[in-house]
Amino acid sequence: MAICRFTDENGHSQFAIYDRERICPLSTLLGKPIDQTQLFSRGNKWLESLPAPTESQWLTTPSTLLPPIADPDKIICIGLNYRDHALETGSEIPTEPVVFSKFNTALIGHGDAIRLPKIATKVDYEAELVVVIGKKAKQVSPNDAMQYVMGYSCGHDVSARDWQKGRPGGQWLLGKTFDTFAPVGPCLVTTAEMPNPSRVRVRMHLNGETVQESTTEQLIFSIPELISHLSNIVTLKPGDLIFTGTPPGVGVARKPPVFLKAGDTCSVEIEGIGTLTNSCVDD
Amino acid sequence: MAICRFTDENGHSQFAIYDRERICPLSTLLGKPIDQTQLFSRGNKWLESLPAPTESQWLTTPSTLLPPIADPDKIICIGLNYRDHALETGSEIPTEPVVFSKFNTALIGHGDAIRLPKIATKVDYEAELVVVIGKKAKQVSPNDAMQYVMGYSCGHDVSARDWQKGRPGGQWLLGKTFDTFAPVGPCLVTTAEMPNPSRVRVRMHLNGETVQESTTEQLIFSIPELISHLSNIVTLKPGDLIFTGTPPGVGVARKPPVFLKAGDTCSVEIEGIGTLTNSCVDD
Repeated sequence: MAICRFTDENGHSQFAIYDRERICPLSTLLGKPIDQTQLFSRGNKWLESLPAPTESQWLTTPSTLLPPIADPDKIICIGLNYRDHALETGSEIPTEPVVFSKFNTALIGHGDAIRLPKIATKVDYEAELVVVIGKKAKQVSPNDAMQYVMGYSCGHDVSARDWQKGRPGGQWLLGKTFDTFAPVGPCLVTTAEMPNPSRVRVRMHLNGETVQESTTEQLIFSIPELISHLSNIVTLKPGDLIFTGTPPGVGVARKPPVFLKAGDTCSVEIEGIGTLTNSCVDD
Repeated sequence: MAICRFTDENGHSQFAIYDRERICPLSTLLGKPIDQTQLFSRGNKWLESLPAPTESQWLTTPSTLLPPIADPDKIICIGLNYRDHALETGSEIPTEPVVFSKFNTALIGHGDAIRLPKIATKVDYEAELVVVIGKKAKQVSPNDAMQYVMGYSCGHDVSARDWQKGRPGGQWLLGKTFDTFAPVGPCLVTTAEMPNPSRVRVRMHLNGETVQESTTEQLIFSIPELISHLSNIVTLKPGDLIFTGTPPGVGVARKPPVFLKAGDTCSVEIEGIGTLTNSCVDD
């Protein structure tokens, strides 16, 4: 099953079943809205047991969706996690996951605009598979890790290279967390619908041209390894997002380099999930 | 005025006026509890206008308090922001703020235990003045910045040096964000009570011995400069916490180095705010 979140006609956010061109609000199926805490506490088995919507219960998908998760406790990002991407940036293959973060003020949904800051000149794209944590996880083994996953989404780790690197302290955070720099969506696909996330194709299309392409078979640290590693340091909570790294083809590694400009359209396409599209505007 | 947050006899968190040995729940003054969103929307002027509690309205302060802010949107930390501390770590004086973050799962209150992870051997202390943002702030000038501040608290930027540095990618996040690595408290002191935060003494006492001491006059980037800088990158929101950096005297710079061990007691004392005390236990 795929779930999305949208703004209803009264301005409230609602969860819905997502079927690409159509959505069915969970409130239509249940008779009343369900909030995020309830959704996570009922979990995937409950979601999969919902009755199929009837024809009249479907609505046309709005052009803009909310990020499938509101206000996650954490947005965790993994750097240099595709072997080819690590090589193209001139970095060594990491011997353990490189971890940074974004703030929630960076989170936007499918159809929202990426705002290019006046003070950043080298804004780059990065297509990523995003893991959505479903249950509290602390010190879990790689073998057990997948039972803590609710599902997956497409993510775009927008990155201002001139703020990510070459600054005092060498911290990537600011370059990665300008407002609107974390598009996620269009939907969350549950683990039942995507049982094997370790073999899915991840692509970035820039203005229709495929600029990044790989599969998650190329991950240096697998999803269970990442969850286990992170859970040894922090308690993972329902709704936490893990951006799992990006394939080769980023703009900064191109010759000549390619950076985002107003009017550009970025589409992250992940096999089995769908396409997350965001246009760029000047802030 | 000083505000704290505590767990009442029914297990609910409540805000209270804080007077060191005594607290007066805002629910006692108002006849009903007030939540964090309401507190921020009413703001400091409203707080200062509350009637003084009568003698019978005061309760004894519990030994453990909650962090004064629940689930902030961001915990932003500034590195190397005291001139002497930058020098003692062998770092250059930064030409712009070094910014990293902690996750909310690191946040604990006064009296809570700092849990020393099995997988970290070099856990260090850092006393810090914490700024609590009161209003949404985006692209504000240093001159205007202080009007977005609600108040100040004591913070402890607990830091696992063996996870902060020398790891692939050079990101500090993991070493700074183990669970319990962000004690904040005991209270939030409003700007009316602390009109000049740029001249307050900041000290860390380890088992009663003063190991860090300086004043915020030594800040390389002042509080208004930090707020302005950060607001050019992210939208600051009510409740956001900014750890403003630590004075010299950290354990890793001592000869021989000093690291935290089970049974140690750390007290961050800041002039005009109070003392935030946390003991260390093995996780």
